[in-house]
Amino acid sequence: MDPRVREHAELLVEWSARIEPGDNVVVSVAEGTHDLAVAVADVLGEIGANVATTYASDEVKRAYQRAHDGDFETPTHERALYEHADSALFLKGGRNTFATADVDGETQKAAKRANSPIREARLATDWVSTLHPTRSLAQQAEMAYEAYQDFLYDAILRDWDSLAAEMGQLKDRLDQGSEVRLVRGDAELTMSIEGRTAVNSAASVAYGSHNLPSGEVFTAPYNVEGEVRFDVPMTISGSRVRDLWLRFEDGRVVDYDAAVGAATIGDVLDTDPGARSLGELGIGMNRGIDRVTGNGILDEKMGDTIHLALGRAYDACVPAGESGNESAVHVDLITDVSADARLEIDDEVVQRNGRFRWEDGFRSA
Amino acid sequence: MDPRVREHAELLVEWSARIEPGDNVVVSVAEGTHDLAVAVADVLGEIGANVATTYASDEVKRAYQRAHDGDFETPTHERALYEHADSALFLKGGRNTFATADVDGETQKAAKRANSPIREARLATDWVSTLHPTRSLAQQAEMAYEAYQDFLYDAILRDWDSLAAEMGQLKDRLDQGSEVRLVRGDAELTMSIEGRTAVNSAASVAYGSHNLPSGEVFTAPYNVEGEVRFDVPMTISGSRVRDLWLRFEDGRVVDYDAAVGAATIGDVLDTDPGARSLGELGIGMNRGIDRVTGNGILDEKMGDTIHLALGRAYDACVPAGESGNESAVHVDLITDVSADARLEIDDEVVQRNGRFRWEDGFRSA
Repeated sequence: MDPRVREHAELLVEWSARIEPGDNVVVSVAEGTHDLAVAVADVLGEIGANVATTYASDEVKRAYQRAHDGDFETPTHERALYEHADSALFLKGGRNTFATADVDGETQKAAKRANSPIREARLATDWVSTLHPTRSLAQQAEMAYEAYQDFLYDAILRDWDSLAAEMGQLKDRLDQGSEVRLVRGDAELTMSIEGRTAVNSAASVAYGSHNLPSGEVFTAPYNVEGEVRFDVPMTISGSRVRDLWLRFEDGRVVDYDAAVGAATIGDVLDTDPGARSLGELGIGMNRGIDRVTGNGILDEKMGDTIHLALGRAYDACVPAGESGNESAVHVDLITDVSADARLEIDDEVVQRNGRFRWEDGFRSA
Repeated sequence: MDPRVREHAELLVEWSARIEPGDNVVVSVAEGTHDLAVAVADVLGEIGANVATTYASDEVKRAYQRAHDGDFETPTHERALYEHADSALFLKGGRNTFATADVDGETQKAAKRANSPIREARLATDWVSTLHPTRSLAQQAEMAYEAYQDFLYDAILRDWDSLAAEMGQLKDRLDQGSEVRLVRGDAELTMSIEGRTAVNSAASVAYGSHNLPSGEVFTAPYNVEGEVRFDVPMTISGSRVRDLWLRFEDGRVVDYDAAVGAATIGDVLDTDPGARSLGELGIGMNRGIDRVTGNGILDEKMGDTIHLALGRAYDACVPAGESGNESAVHVDLITDVSADARLEIDDEVVQRNGRFRWEDGFRSA
């Protein structure tokens, strides 16, 4: 077995999920992630955790949902499994990213509603979702399989302790700051972050972070003004979007355009009132992720990028008792900040052309 | 997909497990049984059952058990899953029948003890275990893959309704009978079945039968006298046994011999006092199973064979409140009755040279 599979498993169990002896752990095994499941079982055995393995197959899901009349019930036995679990590890990969492409949207939504008590029980555990390099993910990334393996393990097998410390510096500045300015080329966006709390998404439940790889710091901005262009290619609701431009006034999108996919963005903005406001400002800090692969979870963590999400804000960023921006959507839009760009907090330049002020090569002006 | 996979799935869900709308069903998916899982999900979706899928991998189990210190705890989250389930479908197959060959016996036993509350919860559901034709099972049977598929589907895709009716005739005779005589060549065995109840193992929970395929009628004999030879090759505790001969006096084995594997049988007999007595008389009636494949579940159901098990008797055969033969083992020994053989119940010949008395070609003397 590729030794990186074992390293990945150790990182997942020890750094990310912080699993301890006697913990009840669900390991959700997607089609194509068997080798990682074996390595994870090895690590969990060493620790002395108690394991139940579930099978997550999009092809099984497709067959079930297409055959069903749509009046779904909650599988209460699966809910009981998660209610009695301390941790849940989701090994994702799969064999075809379009395996459920011919299940109609209404059916998928109905199934999702019926499963929401399971989702809640899952989210109440120390859960972590991770990716195993499969040929299907390589294809999605338009990469050869071995090259994709190298890419993904570079993204996963970081020195997370050190990255967490570095990201902590940015979190502190965001937590203490009042206003953020993002300048890219001739466009400029300002937003308020006063009173909001940033999340140091260091790929560990100890940091409130549930994805491996992760590597971003994010908060929930408001009172957004100005304009911004997103030049990283994105897939939104299954459609491609290129060179999106947004203009904000009084915290809301008042104008937009795109080289490709303007109608898709229009649909997003019309979902509900909250869809026209930002729910997230995220700063990608995982330099192991050095290219766009069409997988949002990875793309938004890419080093030297910043993403802004239209729609729902994360509760963790908002003071207890208050609610952040509310919406049924949360659509991440990514922009490259490696050149001709700067990020300021309260007029202090924190990042310029991808370099943070605590890094070698940073120019303050 | 091979249309037989879909037929198998329908039979499993409808005939065997009798699943109804709203039932909570666990589908346990072994490595290599994905296609059957998809077909089963399709049928369960049509019925409107609620599905949770688990992953049963011997390689995952091996990794976990080898890494563990051996002080296993019960995974109570998995127990909760089964406690909230109405039915459980075990799709077996796998990719290597020796996948756990290098896990030491003590470790396997300790894990089994820790998992016994899960096993009890599972047995309390309407559970059915079935086999999907994998290359690993073909190899175990020393057959080509396509030939094995034909073989296994012939065993599974029977007219179970009609076979259940035929087996019912034998069950009735056994239930009403007092003494069974098995005559093979120059050897003769007699046993008492007075007061015992036979099980019509018709591959359906409606008959108290939990394997698909099945196809046998069995009861719990006692007061066994005489001798018998077992000429069907068997694998017992991982060792081959050929041409086994046993002699019984006062219900217990007093002498034995085998062309191959006599020591293995000696070990079985010395397990505990109950291991020297019979726990089962079974009559194989599935003529779709027309050859030995080294899989005990299939071999013992083979048409024109009879099996006798040393050790534990099944509760279903013994009157409520009484206990049948007790032992830690239950070892099935199979003999060919297609020629030079007859089975008598209370001196009436019920089967001669493989033909039952209700069949064409039966000779009463």
